Amino acid sequence: MFITFEGPDGSGKTTQVHLLYRYLKEQGYPVYLAREPGGTRIGDQIRAVLHDVRNVEMRPEAEILLYSASRAQLVGQVIRPRLAAGDIVLCDRYAESTLAYQGYGRQLDLATLQIITRFATGGLRPDLIIYLDIPVEEGLRRRLAAHQQDGAEWNRMDQETVDFHRRVRAGYLQMAQTEPERWCVLDASQPVDVIQQRIREEVLARLEGA
Amino acid sequence: MFITFEGPDGSGKTTQVHLLYRYLKEQGYPVYLAREPGGTRIGDQIRAVLHDVRNVEMRPEAEILLYSASRAQLVGQVIRPRLAAGDIVLCDRYAESTLAYQGYGRQLDLATLQIITRFATGGLRPDLIIYLDIPVEEGLRRRLAAHQQDGAEWNRMDQETVDFHRRVRAGYLQMAQTEPERWCVLDASQPVDVIQQRIREEVLARLEGA
Repeated sequence: MFITFEGPDGSGKTTQVHLLYRYLKEQGYPVYLAREPGGTRIGDQIRAVLHDVRNVEMRPEAEILLYSASRAQLVGQVIRPRLAAGDIVLCDRYAESTLAYQGYGRQLDLATLQIITRFATGGLRPDLIIYLDIPVEEGLRRRLAAHQQDGAEWNRMDQETVDFHRRVRAGYLQMAQTEPERWCVLDASQPVDVIQQRIREEVLARLEGA
Repeated sequence: MFITFEGPDGSGKTTQVHLLYRYLKEQGYPVYLAREPGGTRIGDQIRAVLHDVRNVEMRPEAEILLYSASRAQLVGQVIRPRLAAGDIVLCDRYAESTLAYQGYGRQLDLATLQIITRFATGGLRPDLIIYLDIPVEEGLRRRLAAHQQDGAEWNRMDQETVDFHRRVRAGYLQMAQTEPERWCVLDASQPVDVIQQRIREEVLARLEGA
């Protein structure tokens, strides 16, 4: 079973994926936690290029191709073998991030991005996509507060316009609507433990149904 | 005018592109020589990942996406601005290498590779592709001799089967046949200066015709 977590930065995505990872491990499930970009030795080298703050001149096409290269390596080297061995694989962001941010957000050609994504993943889709939904203004407010209080990373994406983030959210919701059986949309404004409870119910129901 | 050089390693491609570069410069033409992968700061970082000998586990999809990312950066940051400024741009290998080696040679889906390539280049095609054609056995013999005598680099591509190189050559010739006005196919078994003379004639005829 392959489960990915999607949603804007500030939605609590990373907290939730770690809580689920620990919970499933405690319950005795074989579980593996991956992250994008990176997650392999080659992927970490690519991640270093993507996160190098000097690389301000990076072309949007180059950025997408680098994310996709890192994803191709992660899928081929880690995710597929782990799934074949019977592990539950959790991934903090996956292909739907590219479609939401670059396709819907930056308005690059969605059909082309889908083809690149299918090429990179060899067609591997998540069985379940947990999407932490949050109104755009609330998400930005949280990220800004975290940045100011805790020195949390404030990245390029945060500086995009509110319109951009609105398009990203609308894109996520549209993808969820098109494949409701694959998506679990949760209101991220709820308390952390309430959201985690809902995620566990959803995952356990599917594990028991499988 | 955008001119690319294609052909197997061992065909004399790199020698010819340098000779043409020097000749055009001496003739007073504004000319820029680019190379793949690399050619930009970000592209050189990507090149380092591609050429890292420890990266034996690299997935073929990741490799293609990294070449394409480097190409996207080179096109956007260097080739397009140079062309816009009126330079003649020469490039040692370009998109047709991906189609020949990964598409025809490795038999990955050609339509997908064309879409990825079009995305990376923003649709920028060469005005002239100089293809140095050489029978497969002769090309391998040359590379092996150079490797043994001069310690020239012996890379992964050289170790592919003769069948692979036959498919690559057939792919190049098929592309040339489909767009004869864009391709100049030359017999690479001729002496260096004879080939260079033919290239100069071809390039000058097009420069004067333009």
